[in-house]
This record gives sequence, C-alpha cells and structure tokens, in this order.
Amino acid sequence: MQKLKERIRREGKVLPGGIIKIDGFLNHRVDTALMGEIADEFAKYFDVSKITMVLTAEASGIALATVCASRYGVPMVFAKKAKSDNIEGGLYQSDIFSYTYKKKVTLLVAQDWISDSDRVLIVDDFMANGEAMRGLLDIVAKSGAQLAGIGVAVEKGFQHGGDRLREAGYDLHSLAIIESAEDGVITFRGDQ
Amino acid sequence: MQKLKERIRREGKVLPGGIIKIDGFLNHRVDTALMGEIADEFAKYFDVSKITMVLTAEASGIALATVCASRYGVPMVFAKKAKSDNIEGGLYQSDIFSYTYKKKVTLLVAQDWISDSDRVLIVDDFMANGEAMRGLLDIVAKSGAQLAGIGVAVEKGFQHGGDRLREAGYDLHSLAIIESAEDGVITFRGDQ
Repeated sequence: MQKLKERIRREGKVLPGGIIKIDGFLNHRVDTALMGEIADEFAKYFDVSKITMVLTAEASGIALATVCASRYGVPMVFAKKAKSDNIEGGLYQSDIFSYTYKKKVTLLVAQDWISDSDRVLIVDDFMANGEAMRGLLDIVAKSGAQLAGIGVAVEKGFQHGGDRLREAGYDLHSLAIIESAEDGVITFRGDQ
Repeated sequence: MQKLKERIRREGKVLPGGIIKIDGFLNHRVDTALMGEIADEFAKYFDVSKITMVLTAEASGIALATVCASRYGVPMVFAKKAKSDNIEGGLYQSDIFSYTYKKKVTLLVAQDWISDSDRVLIVDDFMANGEAMRGLLDIVAKSGAQLAGIGVAVEKGFQHGGDRLREAGYDLHSLAIIESAEDGVITFRGDQ
C-alpha cells in the first residue's frame, strides 16, 4: 500500500535495536482516516462478506481492528492480556512472550465470544516476531473457528515472524513490509 | 440513551462486588454499529466540529474513541498505561490507582501528540471511580490543551466518580448511569 509506505518513510523514526517508531499515525496517535483506507485495502484481498468477526490483541491493534469491523459490519473482539498463571474458567488462552515487556503474557478470549461457528479475520497494526499473532492463531484453533486470513498493516520483515507464518501456510497479507531500517533509512520488501 | 440502557438490561451480568459485566458489546466483544450510535449521541451534546482530537485511555476505551474520532474526522490518541516510576522524557504523565489491577499505574501521552493548540474531547467506555478520567484530565491540563468535554458510555453512578467531576464543574455527559445493581437488578439514574 503505497500511501502507508510513504507515511512510514516520512514520519517513521528508526531507533537503536531495530525499533521503528510510527506512533504519530498508527499506535499512539491514530489517523482514523488512514485506518479506513487500510481497512478498504484488506477488503480487496480478503472476502470480508463471509467473516463473522474481526479479532485482534490489546492494546494498539484495537483501533485498526475497530475500523475494519465497523466497515465490514461485524463485531470486533480483542484478546486481553493478563499476567500468566491467572487461570479462569470459560476462557481460551495462549501464552506468548512479549518482547516489549520482556516477559511472558497470556492472551485471553472469553469462550462466549468465539466459537466453531465463527469465521475470523485477524487484524493487527504491527507484526515483528509474530508472538502476539501466534497466540491469536492458537486461540482461534482452540475455539474451532475458521480462519479467514490475517491482515497486518506494518510488518517488520527482518524479524521474520511473517515469513514463518507464510511458510506454515497461513494467508497473511501485510500492507507494508519493512525489509531493513539501517542508518535511519527504511527499505520495504519488493521496492527497487 | 435508551438503546444502550436496553442492551445493558438485557445482556449485563451483575457479579459480586458491584461488578457489571457488559463485555458482549462494550469492552471485550465490541458491537461496532452500537459504537457508531453512541458516537452520534455524543455529537448531539458536544460541538464536535471544533475539536482537534479524541483522547482515551488504553485498552477498552480505544474502540469507542476510534469510532468517535473516525466520525468526527479527527485523530484518536490513547494514553498508554505503564508501570509507575518508569519516567521518560517527552511525556505528559499522571499516576492513577487502578481498581482493576489493585495497583498504581501511570498514564502517559507523548508531548508530540497533545499541545496547547488542541481542543480535546475525552471519551471512555466505562467510568466507575473515575481514576482513569482523573489521569486523562490531569494530562490535558498539563499539556495546556482546551477541554471540549467528557463523553462516557456507561457510568457506575453508585461509585460517584462522575458526581465528583460534575461537582468540580466538568462538562461530563454519560449515556447510561447505573444507579444500583442489587440482587441482579440494574436500575438507571433518572428512571422511574
């Protein structure tokens, strides 16, 4: 998605450790109009007329997933993050490692809100190592729901979470894949 | 807002300790169409044509705030929650007590995304003791931004966070104020 790549090039800041800060439009201050265009872009790739829900993980995925769900006319469900070993009944849960917080966290979705009659589009704003995505996929599998696909706005290609999912056969569509971010220069996969 | 009250009456579960669970449409599984109607309801009360941003706190406020910001044509900013004593530069921050997590948390907004030229509508899905709201108001005050008002979907009137804000002169508009939730019966303020 050309417009998204241009925003990343123009406004993205490359920090030490391969951290790419695009919090001016994606995950702290959210450009809601751009989220609408991203939602429309996913709808060109996935058949959103057949989905029953959009699933994401808290917190920063919620904004994009809400705009998507709103445009596709379905509910949005977000997996909650809990400290590990906090086990309750009636929940699908999956343990992931959070690179942001440097600790294990558990993603939780109430069994009331996802079931084997659902057809789920997973949406996230950002994917790096793909740990949160692994947890969401685990929850979808546990629930017996069908997976319609995975839409990601910005993927950090050089951390290979997305590549692992593609190799495993998942239908993952990322709108901007950052191949490298060295010396402050951001390069996208597929660009010359 | 009659429709919201009906949903709360029909789907809300009253748990011990005055906890009201409405996670089937508000804060786990989100009914995006209802969020749109709530956004339109706020727009009848507040002059949203003059605001420059919608502000909320992560995580569950993000969905409603995103729909509001999208309809009003402005960006949505969410305050991030961090562990206390994690002080960084370039941030407005406010310490609040989280009754959910039974500990102090810090709300953070980057100084890049709120300033004295902003006119801010604060939106949240739920208000009980009003601690998160106190933190958001503190951040708006520190930034020098103008406050356009506070829109809340569901207020727990019997915990009086909203009453304290009204007494302090804030323009708070809640669409459903739960006055009591005893023996499983939910009663709204203003109802006969």
